[in-house]
Amino acid sequence: MSFALSLNTGTTPTLNLREAVQLSAEAGLTHIGPWRHLISDVGGAAEAAKIITDGGLKASTLCRGGFLTANSKQGQAAALEANREAIREAGIIGADELIMVVGGLPAAAHVLGGEGERSDKNIASARERVARTLDDLVPYALEHGVRLVLEALHPMYVADRAVLSTLGQALDLATPYPTAAVGVVVDTFHVFWDPQLQQQIQRAGLENRLASYQICDFNLPLANDALKSRGMMGDGYVDFETISRWVSKAGYRGPVEVEIFNEQINSQPPAQTLATMAERYTELVLPHLNEAAGIVPADVAL
Amino acid sequence: MSFALSLNTGTTPTLNLREAVQLSAEAGLTHIGPWRHLISDVGGAAEAAKIITDGGLKASTLCRGGFLTANSKQGQAAALEANREAIREAGIIGADELIMVVGGLPAAAHVLGGEGERSDKNIASARERVARTLDDLVPYALEHGVRLVLEALHPMYVADRAVLSTLGQALDLATPYPTAAVGVVVDTFHVFWDPQLQQQIQRAGLENRLASYQICDFNLPLANDALKSRGMMGDGYVDFETISRWVSKAGYRGPVEVEIFNEQINSQPPAQTLATMAERYTELVLPHLNEAAGIVPADVAL
Repeated sequence: MSFALSLNTGTTPTLNLREAVQLSAEAGLTHIGPWRHLISDVGGAAEAAKIITDGGLKASTLCRGGFLTANSKQGQAAALEANREAIREAGIIGADELIMVVGGLPAAAHVLGGEGERSDKNIASARERVARTLDDLVPYALEHGVRLVLEALHPMYVADRAVLSTLGQALDLATPYPTAAVGVVVDTFHVFWDPQLQQQIQRAGLENRLASYQICDFNLPLANDALKSRGMMGDGYVDFETISRWVSKAGYRGPVEVEIFNEQINSQPPAQTLATMAERYTELVLPHLNEAAGIVPADVAL
Repeated sequence: MSFALSLNTGTTPTLNLREAVQLSAEAGLTHIGPWRHLISDVGGAAEAAKIITDGGLKASTLCRGGFLTANSKQGQAAALEANREAIREAGIIGADELIMVVGGLPAAAHVLGGEGERSDKNIASARERVARTLDDLVPYALEHGVRLVLEALHPMYVADRAVLSTLGQALDLATPYPTAAVGVVVDTFHVFWDPQLQQQIQRAGLENRLASYQICDFNLPLANDALKSRGMMGDGYVDFETISRWVSKAGYRGPVEVEIFNEQINSQPPAQTLATMAERYTELVLPHLNEAAGIVPADVAL
């Protein structure tokens, strides 16, 4: 089925993997996008794979790899090893896509608990280190049948989370590599503001890089913890109709993951979150994906 | 003198215009960038012009015009009238440059107190309305010898402040108009993250649009009021060396305005702010502007 709704487990942080799978299945979902800590919590990828399969679901993505901007040899080596492990895990749980948050400036390393990094505010150098590390990771990803999915993060996170800020930049970074090895994700919160969004989504489709569509709204005011400003679809300023049409017209037919970090939503009963999420998706997003894809509503069941 | 340091009065919000002029002059500054409310507080532009001139200063810019995204006839008419008034004021106080913050989405109009706007999250339409309103304002700006300076704001403000998010987009928007009528500003806080920054600053120089250089740092964590996340140079993550070289190499030699909205800095004694600002400018910014311009340090006095 096209445009299967998927729960990114960041949306329901109080649930363990087993509970998230069960509630998702009960809500009629067919896919789930787990974060890595849920996998280690159940003892590893093999057990996680069993839980997901036994629950009747499929993994849409694994969140996440990345943080490739360290400027020390130890930092780079640690990043490589952590990402190889994430690639193996993605392969074992059957997630074809490993979401990659590339990392921020070493000058902000303390924010992330990084040790031994020289303070460095040069964004261009940090971006070069991301590219070099991808060179090392790509063959390993291909071996494991996992695609590294570059995530452009909102520019408010450029210093501490990702020196990759636009879809166009993500596509430029992906260009040297096989499409099976490196893709990009459109996350509405991160890219809805971009004046080049339409053309870069189209380009992502043409270049066979469009690997994931993640949705949530952009709320104002920003939350005190800026990471938690992601809102339920319809509560903020994202134009889901327009962006969903672009994604659909670019040829994307894969799962649509809802990833919401939001103090209020994250602490409410998860079953309620799943119900609202499915309702808003069906009302605000899916019709536009379907229409742009030429899928008639009769074909559609959540 | 090239690269004259200028106080944007947003940095010292406790001062009236007379006090801001006096403290700036005492700190050795030659320029000031006033906000419009300081001008109405002294009874209008003629009196403000006298205060600035009598204080031995020159206006670097006037802050600000803009907010052109209203989708009602009344809203558009009100925006035109407000901007014509701002253009007249800029002309009278001798500011060649009127900074333009173009406005956000009508869906966020309540944030700005806008009335009668239809809720609308379509960013592309909002951008088209900005372009149409510029058509109306440009002849008026030319008549008054004032340049409309388009300010790309950080994408975190796209919904409520400016649907103009990158320097490239600002230059595209400026293209139809004479260079004497429409320019762009490089504000480090707003654009430091942009992967196209170097090429777009270069382009701004080549196209004779580089009208203002505004500086402050990008602090983390973001302030609870996101507008107040601007920091003193050196306190955050902006690479002033790199960006200042680009601006200088693009041919900019005008005043450099410090504009900091920051709870702590805005409430400390203004003389202290001016002293720190001059010191940080001399240490972290000016040497790179000068070197890239081929100006030898002996020529330089603050």
